[in-house]
Amino acid sequence: MITSTSARSLEAEVQHRLDNKTKPTGSLGRIEQLALQLALALGTPAPKLDSPQMIVFAADHGIAAQGVSAYPSDVTWQMVENFLAGGAAVAVLARQHGLALTVVDCGVRHDFTPRPGLVVAKVAAGSADSLQGPAMTTAQCAEAMANGARFAASLPGNAILLGEMGIGNTSAAALLMARLTGLAIEECAGRGTGLDDAAFARKLGVLRSALQRAPDAASPLAALADVGGLEIATMVGSILEATRLRRVIVVDGFICTAAVAVAIAIEPSVFAQCVFAHCSAESGHARWLERLGARALLNLDLRLGEGSGAALAWPLLESACRILAEMASFESAGVSNRGD
Amino acid sequence: MITSTSARSLEAEVQHRLDNKTKPTGSLGRIEQLALQLALALGTPAPKLDSPQMIVFAADHGIAAQGVSAYPSDVTWQMVENFLAGGAAVAVLARQHGLALTVVDCGVRHDFTPRPGLVVAKVAAGSADSLQGPAMTTAQCAEAMANGARFAASLPGNAILLGEMGIGNTSAAALLMARLTGLAIEECAGRGTGLDDAAFARKLGVLRSALQRAPDAASPLAALADVGGLEIATMVGSILEATRLRRVIVVDGFICTAAVAVAIAIEPSVFAQCVFAHCSAESGHARWLERLGARALLNLDLRLGEGSGAALAWPLLESACRILAEMASFESAGVSNRGD
Repeated sequence: MITSTSARSLEAEVQHRLDNKTKPTGSLGRIEQLALQLALALGTPAPKLDSPQMIVFAADHGIAAQGVSAYPSDVTWQMVENFLAGGAAVAVLARQHGLALTVVDCGVRHDFTPRPGLVVAKVAAGSADSLQGPAMTTAQCAEAMANGARFAASLPGNAILLGEMGIGNTSAAALLMARLTGLAIEECAGRGTGLDDAAFARKLGVLRSALQRAPDAASPLAALADVGGLEIATMVGSILEATRLRRVIVVDGFICTAAVAVAIAIEPSVFAQCVFAHCSAESGHARWLERLGARALLNLDLRLGEGSGAALAWPLLESACRILAEMASFESAGVSNRGD
Repeated sequence: MITSTSARSLEAEVQHRLDNKTKPTGSLGRIEQLALQLALALGTPAPKLDSPQMIVFAADHGIAAQGVSAYPSDVTWQMVENFLAGGAAVAVLARQHGLALTVVDCGVRHDFTPRPGLVVAKVAAGSADSLQGPAMTTAQCAEAMANGARFAASLPGNAILLGEMGIGNTSAAALLMARLTGLAIEECAGRGTGLDDAAFARKLGVLRSALQRAPDAASPLAALADVGGLEIATMVGSILEATRLRRVIVVDGFICTAAVAVAIAIEPSVFAQCVFAHCSAESGHARWLERLGARALLNLDLRLGEGSGAALAWPLLESACRILAEMASFESAGVSNRGD
């Protein structure tokens, strides 16, 4: 870990380099801020992204039995097959950008045939229904987090992109948001993959009851076990380990933000490693990003998850590094600066 | 040109394909709309972007002598050298995304050594000062437009990305906006590359006077010659020809939007070919996009120009095509759709 003094001197060095590039000061806007963030996150004035790893954390959710999703639970395992076969959106986008794609089975209610690109780290065949009781036992939650940490440590490179799959997991994320922020469930929950008015009203009722069941489980870890999910807990473990290893963490949508919010609550230094890829159309997401003090790069009305938004934002991270590495300075290019 | 009946049937075909991809309907948001737009723009249900061409239109502006920019006019030719040497932002980003980069000298006050990547289509050594009289004669404006059309026709591929360089050209663009929209100059002009309060007040005064000089030159072509610029007029010619050739046109920031707005006023079918890459920090840009009924893909506080925003948005166009071409359908992937 660099000291805060050297962090300040690194920041000054990178800002000086950016300001001397052949462009009006600050005119590349968010791309310049991103270049500075990546330099600080990786601890170098010349950040270079290496072997980026897209990870899709997958699990089933007991609460899906309450009809909180527009899709049946079987879609979780069917989509895992689709990720591995290369036909899902995140697989297409990962291919486009040269991102290695791994699916982690954190708790899917299905036995997969082993194959490259699939890591089985199954704690249980899905979480329990958090309307009836805790989604996970404390031991299950800890096991999932340990799995996530071990998996992140096994990956090459210096950047991970977070994705997820789990029918019912916008419900788990909304419950976590309500627990962590204290906001009413109506401000946290949205229509997920596309609920109509009646189904959305039912979802809100289920989530309200689930919150009332154990109103005291408000610490980040207690909330994670009580209303989270196995893929979210595994992701929390990966985020904490990636932060320890000083990697860049590209955060997809609402569910990934839930995992990041839990991780930040446990270890605040997580925040500086995170690039928030996009603000999703899921209604609670913009509010949660604001609460976290995060500003997303893209705003494309996405509400798919999987890591699709993280993959779409990836070239902007590459651009930020290239701007820093490859752009000429006023001096090297012989261009007059203002006031020259 | 396809008929409107076949355009409707093409739209229905592409929408049907998008809706059958393994994702909730519409969940890829703007990327799905972009896929549909690209299909319609290229007239095919399987759009594929071929040999994308980044064009930086460059010229000097007589009005720069009035001190409307934070930079001296020499920066125009110096930056052209920087584009050709590969050190400018747009050159770095074009390299990242495999975009062929050509700089067109439409009227730079400098004689360049001929070299690959530079096309000389110089109508004059800069436009005249539009505070004193018309920026271009009608003949000069027509010549620039013809140059732009000829150049666009000479390019391979089916997509162009618009960029520009010209100290003083946010003034020309703001004057065009005021003429074309009828809005007050205060609603059109911004701080360009970074004017302070005093310099911005001076810029507004200069622009107000320039508008009063010839208040009747309100037709798009008359306004273009009266207050535009040689790079903007050349760009208008390229946009009209690219539309005739049914190519995709990726629009960068405020100055490129000025050229596109003139072209749309001449030929409304231009609009459907245009992908608006980003909404810039130049204050009039958001308002102009709204007037045009355009919604930009990115919002990254960019105010550099050059084509940098168009280049940053390019991977999203590629993603839209790949989603359409490569994603599995519910049937092909064996994934249950809602209600199955």
